[in-house]
Amino acid sequence: MNSIRFCLIGTGRAGLLHARNLRDRLKGADLVAVCDSNPSTLNQCGDELDVDLRFADYREAVRHAEVDAVVIVTPTFLHREIACEAANQGKHVFLEKPMAISIDECLAINEAVKVNDVKLQIGFMRRFDESYLKAKELLDSGKLGRVMVIRSTGRGPGLPPPWIYNLEKSNGILAEVNSHDFDSIRWLADSEFTRVYAEAENFKCLDAKEEWPDFYDNAVATVRFTNGAIGTVNGTCPCHYGYDARMEILCENGVLVIGSIEQHGLTEVLCDGKVIGRAVKSWRNLFKDAYQSEMKHFIECINEDRQPRVSGVDGLKAVEVVVAANQSILKRQSIEIGERETV
Amino acid sequence: MNSIRFCLIGTGRAGLLHARNLRDRLKGADLVAVCDSNPSTLNQCGDELDVDLRFADYREAVRHAEVDAVVIVTPTFLHREIACEAANQGKHVFLEKPMAISIDECLAINEAVKVNDVKLQIGFMRRFDESYLKAKELLDSGKLGRVMVIRSTGRGPGLPPPWIYNLEKSNGILAEVNSHDFDSIRWLADSEFTRVYAEAENFKCLDAKEEWPDFYDNAVATVRFTNGAIGTVNGTCPCHYGYDARMEILCENGVLVIGSIEQHGLTEVLCDGKVIGRAVKSWRNLFKDAYQSEMKHFIECINEDRQPRVSGVDGLKAVEVVVAANQSILKRQSIEIGERETV
Amino acid sequence: MNSIRFCLIGTGRAGLLHARNLRDRLKGADLVAVCDSNPSTLNQCGDELDVDLRFADYREAVRHAEVDAVVIVTPTFLHREIACEAANQGKHVFLEKPMAISIDECLAINEAVKVNDVKLQIGFMRRFDESYLKAKELLDSGKLGRVMVIRSTGRGPGLPPPWIYNLEKSNGILAEVNSHDFDSIRWLADSEFTRVYAEAENFKCLDAKEEWPDFYDNAVATVRFTNGAIGTVNGTCPCHYGYDARMEILCENGVLVIGSIEQHGLTEVLCDGKVIGRAVKSWRNLFKDAYQSEMKHFIECINEDRQPRVSGVDGLKAVEVVVAANQSILKRQSIEIGERETV
Amino acid sequence: MNSIRFCLIGTGRAGLLHARNLRDRLKGADLVAVCDSNPSTLNQCGDELDVDLRFADYREAVRHAEVDAVVIVTPTFLHREIACEAANQGKHVFLEKPMAISIDECLAINEAVKVNDVKLQIGFMRRFDESYLKAKELLDSGKLGRVMVIRSTGRGPGLPPPWIYNLEKSNGILAEVNSHDFDSIRWLADSEFTRVYAEAENFKCLDAKEEWPDFYDNAVATVRFTNGAIGTVNGTCPCHYGYDARMEILCENGVLVIGSIEQHGLTEVLCDGKVIGRAVKSWRNLFKDAYQSEMKHFIECINEDRQPRVSGVDGLKAVEVVVAANQSILKRQSIEIGERETV
Repeated sequence: MNSIRFCLIGTGRAGLLHARNLRDRLKGADLVAVCDSNPSTLNQCGDELDVDLRFADYREAVRHAEVDAVVIVTPTFLHREIACEAANQGKHVFLEKPMAISIDECLAINEAVKVNDVKLQIGFMRRFDESYLKAKELLDSGKLGRVMVIRSTGRGPGLPPPWIYNLEKSNGILAEVNSHDFDSIRWLADSEFTRVYAEAENFKCLDAKEEWPDFYDNAVATVRFTNGAIGTVNGTCPCHYGYDARMEILCENGVLVIGSIEQHGLTEVLCDGKVIGRAVKSWRNLFKDAYQSEMKHFIECINEDRQPRVSGVDGLKAVEVVVAANQSILKRQSIEIGERETV
Repeated sequence: MNSIRFCLIGTGRAGLLHARNLRDRLKGADLVAVCDSNPSTLNQCGDELDVDLRFADYREAVRHAEVDAVVIVTPTFLHREIACEAANQGKHVFLEKPMAISIDECLAINEAVKVNDVKLQIGFMRRFDESYLKAKELLDSGKLGRVMVIRSTGRGPGLPPPWIYNLEKSNGILAEVNSHDFDSIRWLADSEFTRVYAEAENFKCLDAKEEWPDFYDNAVATVRFTNGAIGTVNGTCPCHYGYDARMEILCENGVLVIGSIEQHGLTEVLCDGKVIGRAVKSWRNLFKDAYQSEMKHFIECINEDRQPRVSGVDGLKAVEVVVAANQSILKRQSIEIGERETV
Repeated sequence: MNSIRFCLIGTGRAGLLHARNLRDRLKGADLVAVCDSNPSTLNQCGDELDVDLRFADYREAVRHAEVDAVVIVTPTFLHREIACEAANQGKHVFLEKPMAISIDECLAINEAVKVNDVKLQIGFMRRFDESYLKAKELLDSGKLGRVMVIRSTGRGPGLPPPWIYNLEKSNGILAEVNSHDFDSIRWLADSEFTRVYAEAENFKCLDAKEEWPDFYDNAVATVRFTNGAIGTVNGTCPCHYGYDARMEILCENGVLVIGSIEQHGLTEVLCDGKVIGRAVKSWRNLFKDAYQSEMKHFIECINEDRQPRVSGVDGLKAVEVVVAANQSILKRQSIEIGERETV
Repeated sequence: MNSIRFCLIGTGRAGLLHARNLRDRLKGADLVAVCDSNPSTLNQCGDELDVDLRFADYREAVRHAEVDAVVIVTPTFLHREIACEAANQGKHVFLEKPMAISIDECLAINEAVKVNDVKLQIGFMRRFDESYLKAKELLDSGKLGRVMVIRSTGRGPGLPPPWIYNLEKSNGILAEVNSHDFDSIRWLADSEFTRVYAEAENFKCLDAKEEWPDFYDNAVATVRFTNGAIGTVNGTCPCHYGYDARMEILCENGVLVIGSIEQHGLTEVLCDGKVIGRAVKSWRNLFKDAYQSEMKHFIECINEDRQPRVSGVDGLKAVEVVVAANQSILKRQSIEIGERETV
């Protein structure tokens, strides 16, 4: 079997992580090309990865005969056009979260993927993390009973890039940071969102306050699922102490807790009685194996002509709840989420 | 200085805990009388505590010349009449949470206390717990910056007593279990509630479903504070694995975490690689010292003619947010909480 | 049944802890007298405890008709004479650890107790701690198989009092701090010591170095049990970060871990990513309930004419292994411990 | 710069781990050959790794012109002859722990390495683990003061292979499992061993008892360092609950704790109040990054003509203390370790 030939589109930090996995750690994949509209980052990335085929324009990239699949890690507002064009050129699409800015954009991507019969996978890598998978397995076993309350904490270090300030362009922190949380609780609760309510505030990004009054850096969203389960997501960015991704799933017969603030390893106890550990620093370490596993799965799905476990429907559902949550914040009221076509 | 002579009114488990503290562990207090409308529990309690003065009717108890103060641990719907009568008879009042069923009842109690110039303390013992106090101290120090998101988990073991099924009589789980959480987040956020939204469901109390369709055994409430902070409370009862009281206070410059599911002490690691600890079982152990401290404070306030740290205003505010949360559950919309007179 | 009337002999911190328990928290006990050769601490203690009967001379105390039992919490080198005299006067004896300085002294106490038919209990309160008791129960159940390696860490805060510098008078840190560890591992391994080897060093008590070259503030002892189990004890005093009492029992089918450095309650996570907890500060908090339970047991044993669970044989065995460990340190070789008469 | 061309000698589990790192994850290295005397494992390994150059005889491997360096992961008793022969052929040597069976063997290897001017690194990967490195850095900073007591726990899952039963051939568990612990405490205490005492017992490998009465599956060794620090190592194999590598370094001004029994990730809390985590399963996961880092270092040292951080002297010192500990077990007495030539 031939290796799948990948082009990375978007060469930021998350893009590089995928690129290194494709090049170094994944059998059946070759990283053959990189693409970025910024020439200097493009060349830096190409040099670092030792990839000669480089594109400034994604249209050329997705048309290139030696590219079988693309990994799209651009700002969200570019996802729709790149993903659709790639699909239309018959390329398989690995698309980072959030899937797109609007439901219509998600529908357009799903339509293009369907029409062109290519594979699409959304980058919800937590579904491939060992702890989340074990939790899913325990929930599916039935021994814990029904999910009652599912709580996800998603706090990311690093200031949000300025393009996120414009919520119409980005859907804000709930989209950029907490898409993972919304997808995870939906997956683990095994049910669809029916209602969402959110509160939000901008505490720390003071430079954005005047121009972007709707921007928030902290939010708490409560969702209701069709099966009665109640979900709650807390999103924060920037989170100065580190990367804090935790989940708690309260069931009829027990509770599952995933993750911790602390990165276990070394504890220092000092004369003053302080017991000092270190917080988890980055998603890159915490989900290192999950990033490899999700891409391994994508490669297998292409090779075996199977549907990826994380589909364009999953991507759309996460966008839908975020859009509704943002409406809720503005209207200070809960927003109902009905059934809809997803392709 | 003479000891304060106490009468316990209501001889259930929480009542006995207070009674034993008054009798055995608190200087300056004498437990001189017990009162319960149920003769058998009254006598059982009196015998166990070795207290001869026993009343079936609280009216007699609060009139007795040898009683200086009462500890009221009856069902909530009786709080108003007993507390007011005690105050009118010039007795100091230690009143278990929740303060009362309605805001009007709270106002009536505060009025009676004010008119008769007696002391009133509400049983929010978490305010006297070492960890909560340390958290408050750290927050007040300013080094953590503003509170952004404050999250409280309050899950109690044991089936709710049937009188709680009727929300008009009890205000439900959010009142009976989570009054503590609402009071704690208001105290630690150092701000007043302005809006609340809640979702709730009855997952486990199936026998109550038909007659009491509004009853819920799980709830998630989101509150907004006047200072912008966002609070969230998860209440659950029954919680089969134990008593789970945790709080997390996310600030601009860090996060404080109070409590844990696990009761640390002994860990068992078995051949199959399972690492087994035990969950915290009961509020009686977890807050043992806090129960003593709150009563010690009440005794000091009487002796030194000071206002107790947990006042009738605090009691009223916790009732107000619970009443609004229950409205929110029924209306599926957020409820605004305005300013009001508290006495 | 009449209350047992106690006299406290030795009014230091540990003495006061027992005294307060006897006075405030234990049914069936009255604290009727206190005794200390230092008049000012005697009166301070008597005033604080509101006890009028006060003795400067233990001989008078143990002869007083209103005293049924004594709690001896003096420096160890006084244990033998006080305990024997108390027994000879027909008083029951609660004796703090270590039992005495030498095996001969232990034998003398056991003889006096036997001849006078009084009760003797040694203050190994860990045997009454909930976690240790649960561990004992699990070990006795057989499900973990045989004990293979049992490790106890005993580190105490606070500088050793100068009389401990003289090992002939005190047997050093291994006696004063680690008697608990030796007793606990013997109890949990359910076997007798047969050999001991120890290494020790004085790292921090520099003022003692010249006059007392044999004094050590850190020691590691390895013991062998008759059933083949291997024990190891690490003793340290002063331990500047707090009171660190932990035990680990490796069995054929698993491992039990008791205790932790950290006192769980509040965790603080700061901007720099430090996750900060606090170390356990004092044995007074850690074993608060165990101190009450051991005395409750002693009272019951007197009332019901039963042998206390922690006997003079247990006290002697802990002295014997410490004496041998100190020999080992000096000789730099292992010391065999044979069978012997214990009374 | 050309890549270093490696030959793996010994294709067991640890060998494969190194091979995969060399092939997939390390720049500047090529895995060009594999060698194993067992033809079926040799070919299985060669196929899996996609390596065509295969040797049944290590003599041919080390002579091959396309091999620059070897990674030796054979049973210990073969280390000396393979390592010397490789050095004599001018190949750089990465040698798994323990370095060899005897001090004389270690000296022979060091001599061959010196004479032939090749690089030698011993596989003490813990020195490259992030937590151990951070501990070393803290100790070196001086803020913790002198090391007083250093304790290492090393327990491995899986039955020992039968060749380990013969202590003359293997030096037993203390060598095969606990070489890491001895090296780590020596490195972190920053001092040399002067005395060792050990107790040991065979609890679980009952089939070995008759033929190999000296074999033990549990041991506790106490070592003394020239700087006064006291070390203690507990070794156990098999350890049925998992791989348990922890270290505790008590210093004058605090204590460092490395590692934990539990593999943090998912915690399950059940109705019966059990809080269930999972033990660390394998060194392959725990030290995954350290295995890559040590090899990266070896490659750099070859390229830059530097001495590897873990030298043949380090290997010899770990062998020396193990040999003395085994003597101690047999003689039931402590064994002095003097200074000696190491090359």
